[in-house]
Amino acid sequence: MRNLTRRDALKFSGAAAALLPATLTAQQPKARQQHTPIPQWEIFELTLQGPATGNPFMEVDLSADFRLGYRSVHVPGFYDGEGNYKVRFMPDTVGEWTYTTASNNASLTGKTGSFTVTKPFPNAHGPIVVHNAQHFSYADGTPYFPFGTTSYAWIHQSEALQQQTLATLMSAPFNKIRMCIFPKHYEYNHNEPPFYPFPRNGTTNDYTRFDPHFFAHLEQRILDLQKLNIEADLILFHPYDRWGYQSMSPETDAFYLRYVVARLGAYRNVWWSMANEWDFMKQKTLADFDRLFHVLEAADAHHHLRSIHHGTIMYDYGHPWITHASLQTDEFDKAPQWLAAYKKPVIFDECKYEGNLNRRWGNISAAEMTRRFWLGVINGCYVTHGETYLPETEEAFNEDTTPTLWWSHGGTLHGESSAAIAQLRKLVEESAPIPNARMGFFAQDKPYYLNATVYGGADGKQAQTILYFMDEHQPIWYEFPLPEGTFTAELIDPLTTTATPVPGTHTGKTKIRMKVKSRQALRFRRV
Amino acid sequence: MRNLTRRDALKFSGAAAALLPATLTAQQPKARQQHTPIPQWEIFELTLQGPATGNPFMEVDLSADFRLGYRSVHVPGFYDGEGNYKVRFMPDTVGEWTYTTASNNASLTGKTGSFTVTKPFPNAHGPIVVHNAQHFSYADGTPYFPFGTTSYAWIHQSEALQQQTLATLMSAPFNKIRMCIFPKHYEYNHNEPPFYPFPRNGTTNDYTRFDPHFFAHLEQRILDLQKLNIEADLILFHPYDRWGYQSMSPETDAFYLRYVVARLGAYRNVWWSMANEWDFMKQKTLADFDRLFHVLEAADAHHHLRSIHHGTIMYDYGHPWITHASLQTDEFDKAPQWLAAYKKPVIFDECKYEGNLNRRWGNISAAEMTRRFWLGVINGCYVTHGETYLPETEEAFNEDTTPTLWWSHGGTLHGESSAAIAQLRKLVEESAPIPNARMGFFAQDKPYYLNATVYGGADGKQAQTILYFMDEHQPIWYEFPLPEGTFTAELIDPLTTTATPVPGTHTGKTKIRMKVKSRQALRFRRV
Repeated sequence: MRNLTRRDALKFSGAAAALLPATLTAQQPKARQQHTPIPQWEIFELTLQGPATGNPFMEVDLSADFRLGYRSVHVPGFYDGEGNYKVRFMPDTVGEWTYTTASNNASLTGKTGSFTVTKPFPNAHGPIVVHNAQHFSYADGTPYFPFGTTSYAWIHQSEALQQQTLATLMSAPFNKIRMCIFPKHYEYNHNEPPFYPFPRNGTTNDYTRFDPHFFAHLEQRILDLQKLNIEADLILFHPYDRWGYQSMSPETDAFYLRYVVARLGAYRNVWWSMANEWDFMKQKTLADFDRLFHVLEAADAHHHLRSIHHGTIMYDYGHPWITHASLQTDEFDKAPQWLAAYKKPVIFDECKYEGNLNRRWGNISAAEMTRRFWLGVINGCYVTHGETYLPETEEAFNEDTTPTLWWSHGGTLHGESSAAIAQLRKLVEESAPIPNARMGFFAQDKPYYLNATVYGGADGKQAQTILYFMDEHQPIWYEFPLPEGTFTAELIDPLTTTATPVPGTHTGKTKIRMKVKSRQALRFRRV
Repeated sequence: MRNLTRRDALKFSGAAAALLPATLTAQQPKARQQHTPIPQWEIFELTLQGPATGNPFMEVDLSADFRLGYRSVHVPGFYDGEGNYKVRFMPDTVGEWTYTTASNNASLTGKTGSFTVTKPFPNAHGPIVVHNAQHFSYADGTPYFPFGTTSYAWIHQSEALQQQTLATLMSAPFNKIRMCIFPKHYEYNHNEPPFYPFPRNGTTNDYTRFDPHFFAHLEQRILDLQKLNIEADLILFHPYDRWGYQSMSPETDAFYLRYVVARLGAYRNVWWSMANEWDFMKQKTLADFDRLFHVLEAADAHHHLRSIHHGTIMYDYGHPWITHASLQTDEFDKAPQWLAAYKKPVIFDECKYEGNLNRRWGNISAAEMTRRFWLGVINGCYVTHGETYLPETEEAFNEDTTPTLWWSHGGTLHGESSAAIAQLRKLVEESAPIPNARMGFFAQDKPYYLNATVYGGADGKQAQTILYFMDEHQPIWYEFPLPEGTFTAELIDPLTTTATPVPGTHTGKTKIRMKVKSRQALRFRRV
């Protein structure tokens, strides 16, 4: 809620002062409030009562500085309607925290309080951070390997469908979901959403205020995902729009961005994706997105992951405000180049969707989606799933159908790749620790021409697990080079999700008889 | 046999003159010999008796000028051993041809004769030429679509194995074979050949003369292939060598090249491939190959197709002495770029081999080889097959086997891609006429994002046949844009080689219900 020039102009004006209740206009010493303890990485929410008239969204500025020892964290607050003002803070450290509020409104400024932050809940490991340069972990160091899916507009569907989506996610293998904050207008996406972020009158948005119901609903969905250990990769802007959100003014873009971050930044499972297909947003330039990243960076006291997804023109993921690359491509053979260029984690966030649409982006097979997950992982990167299956009915052929497609609406999964992704996720999670960034592709050098990802060890010598993927290659045997030590081996069939132990143990350059078929994988594990 | 400085030095020397029989030293008018008629595109072979002592390979120069009306074709001859000198000529035009020989040896010079060239045999259509800029035909205009295979060293195996190779080729779908003139030393290639091109004494080659038996054997194999309508894509140099042929002197390289061209150039089914993996021949530079192309171009009176195959560094196929690109790559998505750059036919002459070797280049599946053939054709290019299957025995695993691998030794085919290639060849041959060069990929433009090759018509409007390949895409339906007119459609399954007619006829933008599976193809044919 800083740097908003329109509000700055109002800050010390008589109009603003007139809004304040008379009893609070004089500054007085106040009692320091003691709150109930909260566990680390949960949300401390400070609620204050303030003016409910005028336009508090634009006129009232509120923030709090949270302190622990020498640390001070400046957290912007927000207006939640009906005279309620809130500051949300996710403490990242156990201890006795205090806070002091600041506001241009006397009823909200100078409030102080304290609270104890206790050990986290057993299943809470904090937000996701970059770990070992090109991988991820939770804030407490617990390995996190992104196996994402995509459901752009699932929160903009009926409540029944949203509940079905959550039920599907409960047993699906995904721990990240790419989803839009704004509703979506696109092929197969024509419904009106239940909520709008800005009050809407007919076809007009009131860009001077927000609808707290929209955000309360979104927050509930983020919490629902959090309970399922799923990261909400929130897409802040996108070009699939008939309501006007893609062509707001730069000031409104920043106004929106700060409000979103103030409300959602304390949810530990939030990631920021500045845009989907940024280069398809013809109303914005590259410089606009650079600027919005600066707004985001300054507003986000919790320092969530930040990236942006492209259509055909790749953003420069080398920028310091970008934490990881979020690619739209299926050029997995370029993964080593991108890793070398960005020195950051690389997620193939869109590599087309498993499905049967008459669109190139929405009709690859389960086998191909499975292959792409393996190619990403084996190259030291990560991959995101999506699914677009029309039911095989006459309606689908006749195109007068309004299908429920997982990719956008949620619902249920129909494809076969998710079972294969579940197996790969299990293999990778059993392979922890997190790979050292330099060891993403052990086997690029001759004579080890098959790609492999190595888990554990500083330089590969102490590798705990090595995963190989043979792709289209079907050697009758292959000599796999192993680091010093003794390993067991399993032949993996990613498509049938079977794993067959290779008898005995393996050392040095081990020769393994393979099946003569494509898409085989191997896992070596240190004994 | 020109420009050979060592021989030039001997040309007018007393030593050379001393070799000539006394009765022929004086120049006399000779009778013009009348030969029996030969059909167009068969070989007119003029045999003359001359000196058999000394080193006629280096010392005696022979050529003939063949004339028809105003045309004169200068054809170098060669020494075939035992005092026999030959000039081979493949007439490309019906009519009364005459010839006059020239030599530095009086017994061979000034010979004249004439012969009638009659209509070609019914199955003879002449050598292959470039047609419509980026495609091929026989010289008489009959469409020729290359569907090649690879058997580098098949002529250097036992006679029994060579006969087995020919028997296999008789029922295989291939109309071109990539084969080395020199024997091959490489993994799985350790045998001594039955013949050597130069007389060999222990480990020493006599680079001053040739062994005519080597060439007579090679010629027989070229004729065997010709009877099967298979083009011999002859590899003139290669780096797989333990005999010394990869490191001959520049003079010997040229001496060899001129001899090969003089002997083999009259065989209509010959193509010249200057080298296999030229950039792996560390004894030669790029300039060496440029120079050798000039030697080849000057020596080849019959103007056969000329190209060169690379390892990792692509030759500049834009050079005027190159007739087509002979690529080693599986980057089929770059085909449009290469076609645009070279404006010549593009053959993916090595895109890895179907097989089960423990080598990346020799272990792709039949499905993947089939896919690559379709990707090449659908992009307006051509593809070459190869096969490397070890028998699935303990010996194969133990590596002390000397297998017979089609890719190098010939023998029999074990893979499944050849049946799929046979289907594709049939589809393409039924699609004649030859595509117009500009119409190789009708469907690159939006919204036609699936590739298609269009056959017939100057600009696609009069297309007779359109072939689509869906690769990994599996739409439940797809709208195929058609040119004006009425078409029938068939759904093709390249892997099972089945073709299922789509009921009815199709016009305009036709919507076809597909199977939800990858690797489907479609053929539209004008009614």
